[in-house]
Amino acid sequence: MTGFRHVAVIGLGLQGGSIGLAVQAMLPGVRTSGFDLSPAHRARATERGLVEVVHDSAAGAVDGADLVILCVPPGAMAEAALAMAPGLAADAVISDVGSCKVSVAEALAEALPGHAAAGLIVPAHPVAGTENSGPDAGFAALFRNRWCIVTPLAGGDAAAAARVEAFWAGLGARVESMAPDHHDRVLAVTSHLPHLIAYTIVGTASDLEEVTQSEVIKYSAGGFRDFTRIAASDPTMWRDVFLANKGAVLEMLQRFTEDLTALQRAIRVEDGDALFEHFTRTRAVRRSIIEMGQDDARADFGRGDHQG
Amino acid sequence: MTGFRHVAVIGLGLQGGSIGLAVQAMLPGVRTSGFDLSPAHRARATERGLVEVVHDSAAGAVDGADLVILCVPPGAMAEAALAMAPGLAADAVISDVGSCKVSVAEALAEALPGHAAAGLIVPAHPVAGTENSGPDAGFAALFRNRWCIVTPLAGGDAAAAARVEAFWAGLGARVESMAPDHHDRVLAVTSHLPHLIAYTIVGTASDLEEVTQSEVIKYSAGGFRDFTRIAASDPTMWRDVFLANKGAVLEMLQRFTEDLTALQRAIRVEDGDALFEHFTRTRAVRRSIIEMGQDDARADFGRGDHQG
Repeated sequence: MTGFRHVAVIGLGLQGGSIGLAVQAMLPGVRTSGFDLSPAHRARATERGLVEVVHDSAAGAVDGADLVILCVPPGAMAEAALAMAPGLAADAVISDVGSCKVSVAEALAEALPGHAAAGLIVPAHPVAGTENSGPDAGFAALFRNRWCIVTPLAGGDAAAAARVEAFWAGLGARVESMAPDHHDRVLAVTSHLPHLIAYTIVGTASDLEEVTQSEVIKYSAGGFRDFTRIAASDPTMWRDVFLANKGAVLEMLQRFTEDLTALQRAIRVEDGDALFEHFTRTRAVRRSIIEMGQDDARADFGRGDHQG
Repeated sequence: MTGFRHVAVIGLGLQGGSIGLAVQAMLPGVRTSGFDLSPAHRARATERGLVEVVHDSAAGAVDGADLVILCVPPGAMAEAALAMAPGLAADAVISDVGSCKVSVAEALAEALPGHAAAGLIVPAHPVAGTENSGPDAGFAALFRNRWCIVTPLAGGDAAAAARVEAFWAGLGARVESMAPDHHDRVLAVTSHLPHLIAYTIVGTASDLEEVTQSEVIKYSAGGFRDFTRIAASDPTMWRDVFLANKGAVLEMLQRFTEDLTALQRAIRVEDGDALFEHFTRTRAVRRSIIEMGQDDARADFGRGDHQG
């Protein structure tokens, strides 16, 4: 039997809550338990039924579980792993949903040396989310048709990795496997750098003297609005992501800055052909994303009053 | 009588087509005519009925019109104005929908000196759009509940400006009035800079050697996706915008670069508090935008399969 019988979720925010709801909805017969450091979040998780049983300790939540998924910010992984260790079965598979994999894999291996030696640590990253966070944010369909990247460690147990992959497929995700360091470089460009830039521009716009805050907000439909959505994401998680994936983020940022400087120069010297060539090229990327089903083609102009 | 009786639209893309459809839907009794330089676009505009009569020349399209709206890229305004001049009534009000107002106002005044002297040139900018362009992109509800900024020129005819404002209110827009140069600074930050940054990062991601194009597209749901939407906008229009509003764009870009450098330094020296403080502050901007009705609060994660 390859499927898991009891999934414990540590951290009941957007990701953890969605996993609990998705397991209950899509994997009937699999037990769910969970824990969150915040008593208020535990109470809300119980009300919403994010997992079948919300425990008052991490060790209690993982008792009897054969799969434990850590759904806490990257910087809190080690502490959460140490807290649950006393309740953990020796043959439990340990996974997580962190946005950076090298640092999280190291933290988990250090906190749980027995499981690391047995090859039972299988980090993963579902590339799915919204700008909302907390125990009210989760929903069962979050992972449906989204990619989940499983990043098995060198020398890990292949059967454990295969079971984690099958688990995510069971929640509706499309599963891909890659090495943790490659994951961190891919996500640096598809997720971490976009967030850093969105956070930056929203801050820049807030600090202008001659353009009022009210004007920035009123006329945000011209493009700025889309950045504020990303820049509303959970601050704790994103602080941890940038610290945990520092190397890859700084390298991608360097490349971005070079490219921005080139476009800045094209504007300054009024090189319209260079601008046009660049703007035409980026259109093709958009088309590919729609063809791959990672977004839809409906025009977006303040989605409360769509045309279609 | 303050309302217009006959509106001519020059350029039948997203904006022009939407104006034609909106007038027909919301201002019964007002005649519509139009022209587009592209014969293929004219044929499609006729098929879709974007305006009542599609003409084969700009001068023909404006014949008899008491309001003419130029809906061409900023760099094409002067040429379009000169082309239509022979058919233009001396007392027709001239407006446009360009994303930069100082340069467009100058171009129109130079091309139509008689109308400029009579104070009949009233530039405007509906802050509404989608990433689509061309004669298939327009729809009647584009301007509903969006802001339209009217930028009357110093010494212009106040009655003409009031009529243009009333026209936009009639299409469902919320109307605001400001000086052209202030408009250009506001839009540099709420629209032009976001587009430049989105175009840049999509280009950066396309040029990486060690991360494949296919990986960038597959994992775009992590944040990158939102940038590709903006970076799919019409290349000709955006080339013209950056050239026409060069001064304000370069200044905002300078501020953005300073702020990005500060965050880059915080990552390099691992100043988690500075990152957290910045990321918390930007959340408030998002809340204000939702409260102002310029976006909705629904979580966005690939809108084809929404939770709600």
